[in-house]
Amino acid sequence: MGGWRERLAMSGCDLRAMARAARAANQALARATGEKKNAALRAMAKAILDSHEPILAANAEDVAAATSEAHPPAFVDRLTLTVPRLEAMARGLRQIAELPDPVGEITGMWRRPNGLQVGRMRVPLGVIGVIYESRPNVTADAAGLCLKSGNAVILRGGREALRTNTAIGGILAASVTSVGLPEASLAVVPTPDRAVVKEMLQLHHLIDLIIPRGGEELIRAVREGSTIPVIAHDKGVCHTYVDAGADLATAAEIAYNAKVERPGVCNAMETLLVHAEVAAAFLPGFVERLGRAGVEVRGCAKTRALVPGIRPATEEDWGTEYLDLVLSIRVVESFEEALAHIARHGSGLAEAIVTADHGRAMRFLREVDAGAVFVNASTRFTDGSEFGMGAEMGISTQKLHARGPMGLTELTCQKFIVLGDGQVRDSRT
Amino acid sequence: MGGWRERLAMSGCDLRAMARAARAANQALARATGEKKNAALRAMAKAILDSHEPILAANAEDVAAATSEAHPPAFVDRLTLTVPRLEAMARGLRQIAELPDPVGEITGMWRRPNGLQVGRMRVPLGVIGVIYESRPNVTADAAGLCLKSGNAVILRGGREALRTNTAIGGILAASVTSVGLPEASLAVVPTPDRAVVKEMLQLHHLIDLIIPRGGEELIRAVREGSTIPVIAHDKGVCHTYVDAGADLATAAEIAYNAKVERPGVCNAMETLLVHAEVAAAFLPGFVERLGRAGVEVRGCAKTRALVPGIRPATEEDWGTEYLDLVLSIRVVESFEEALAHIARHGSGLAEAIVTADHGRAMRFLREVDAGAVFVNASTRFTDGSEFGMGAEMGISTQKLHARGPMGLTELTCQKFIVLGDGQVRDSRT
Repeated sequence: MGGWRERLAMSGCDLRAMARAARAANQALARATGEKKNAALRAMAKAILDSHEPILAANAEDVAAATSEAHPPAFVDRLTLTVPRLEAMARGLRQIAELPDPVGEITGMWRRPNGLQVGRMRVPLGVIGVIYESRPNVTADAAGLCLKSGNAVILRGGREALRTNTAIGGILAASVTSVGLPEASLAVVPTPDRAVVKEMLQLHHLIDLIIPRGGEELIRAVREGSTIPVIAHDKGVCHTYVDAGADLATAAEIAYNAKVERPGVCNAMETLLVHAEVAAAFLPGFVERLGRAGVEVRGCAKTRALVPGIRPATEEDWGTEYLDLVLSIRVVESFEEALAHIARHGSGLAEAIVTADHGRAMRFLREVDAGAVFVNASTRFTDGSEFGMGAEMGISTQKLHARGPMGLTELTCQKFIVLGDGQVRDSRT
Repeated sequence: MGGWRERLAMSGCDLRAMARAARAANQALARATGEKKNAALRAMAKAILDSHEPILAANAEDVAAATSEAHPPAFVDRLTLTVPRLEAMARGLRQIAELPDPVGEITGMWRRPNGLQVGRMRVPLGVIGVIYESRPNVTADAAGLCLKSGNAVILRGGREALRTNTAIGGILAASVTSVGLPEASLAVVPTPDRAVVKEMLQLHHLIDLIIPRGGEELIRAVREGSTIPVIAHDKGVCHTYVDAGADLATAAEIAYNAKVERPGVCNAMETLLVHAEVAAAFLPGFVERLGRAGVEVRGCAKTRALVPGIRPATEEDWGTEYLDLVLSIRVVESFEEALAHIARHGSGLAEAIVTADHGRAMRFLREVDAGAVFVNASTRFTDGSEFGMGAEMGISTQKLHARGPMGLTELTCQKFIVLGDGQVRDSRT
């Protein structure tokens, strides 16, 4: 303990003052009309484009440093901004302006026997801390989603993108003042020192929610260190289960899409489960097709009996998020065995069944415990905008507050509102 | 560290095994129909009455021990069970059986352009840990609410009620097996050792939510020690604001009720704010009435100028939950000053305005940040059953997941369900 406080003081970053300013800004944000917030979002989009030169200059410094530190090319690519990427950022902000304003929505109102009208109203959470890794577009996305939902935000991006994020954050914060919202509505933490994260996670009187976005290590450190509620986007070990009697052509399309279309994302399939009754008809052809797409297959003993020449899947495989063109396959004797496998190894992100049986489809929907449960569709659809919610802040694998894709409404909470005309309580009645 | 693990092992309580059994039970509970759960609740109610002798015998031992330890009479009274109190417990369980089943409710379903049907379904949270203080009725209430919402529960009551809680828990757990639900659906931790609480708060792979109910010290310890999400019922520093132009007779009834009807509860008023324009007309008569009810009043300088002879309110008073016949009063110059006072000193439980002005009523509803915001009614109504939600698990002063009274739906979460007919994703479009 102690050490990080001194380091932080030396870095000149007064995080507590930033958080206090964010909390003060939150009151103006919470009161702002949808119109004003949309004007701010359009001003933010315009500022990103108008200021592309300083942003790209700051980004070039980050990219040069990352290259000289020998980061892998994929990392440097994610870090690199271009005019088209800035245009996508601006487009994202304008799309958030088009979404309905969740704040002030009254989600229900009922009358009590004593005449009280009781209802629930959506209000912002307050101040949100977002801790993320390299991609600088998160800075604009998170700032836009928090602003639209009436929350102030403190953004803490990756060390390697610090110059880029600081430039984007400064430009966005200045732009919201043009519509009369406080500059402290959004702020980027201006130091790479990790001590800042430690301090941030202790400011539970000033920050209402921490959202970590990044690898397992980041999520774990945030969960363990935080005295503030955390909504984490954890890993995605997603399954597709091909049921007995399923249409095998449909199953092949869905499973192929779930594995191959974009293997590096959390909603891609990592394990295929196949009912023994259809395994012989399904697996040899499907594995051959996967092979043509460059997918490495690992299988259980029954899979390997049907498809010779593939590697055995180990116990570790069943829990691994490959994020790559690798697939583990297991043949199950029953629907129940598939459910049990998913309950044991699934990470709670997304799970799918391909089936023609209505009863098992309904049981799968009800009984599988995941943020998104699919019948006869690819887990790849697990995404706020694919679900029609607009841009997403992440995908929660937790159960509290938000489960599955988190959109604007998940950045609000509901309070009770009560309208009376003089009612008092007599607790003896 | 370390020490509590050994103590726990010596106490013979294998909390991890209890939590694993609860997690296994949760699967059967999550699948149970509303009918089966209601039958279990009625069996629980019957068992409480049928077994009143062993429960009262265990309780007599707890009461004797508490008396010999010189606990205050109010404490001993809360601990003491009688046949009428057991009948109230049984009635509470039967009332939970009458409530609608939240599990499986589909709260919305919409169709996407590609034909996918996307919706949200309520499902249980899983395993809930409830940590509470002396009153043994919480054992039955919490067991009933968790069972109805499809959650398994581990109950950890106060040391002084251990024999009573263990007796009630054993009887309730046995009774649910009569309808075919697992005995591990509910369990009382059978040791007074505080090490159990420490271990419980670390079992984030087995327990999904911790609900502490009790004093500030308990809540703080749970918040700080838990790696599991916590929904706490914190203190209630509730205000009533009498606006300029308010009907003063109505204001007096509401404020009197909020302070006097039951001063020892969290939704009672602790501070009265009065607009300067009506202070002279309102305060002298109202304070006199409070005096007749035995209320000690503490006031700001302006209050004391209008009502001589009362104690000055200190800065500390504004943040104090008296839970007693004590009231602090402050005269404010404006609506904004009242809002600012509440924002600074309120605890987020319940706040009320008495006003005749529609605009200020609406601003108060929107801008005051609390679990329940009242216009022209007493804060004493802040209660799940007064709000029409049935029995409550507590009142959350947090923002995440639940804010205000927590009923059955707050013990569930919503997952996304997606029905397709073969859809696959093309992320290039």
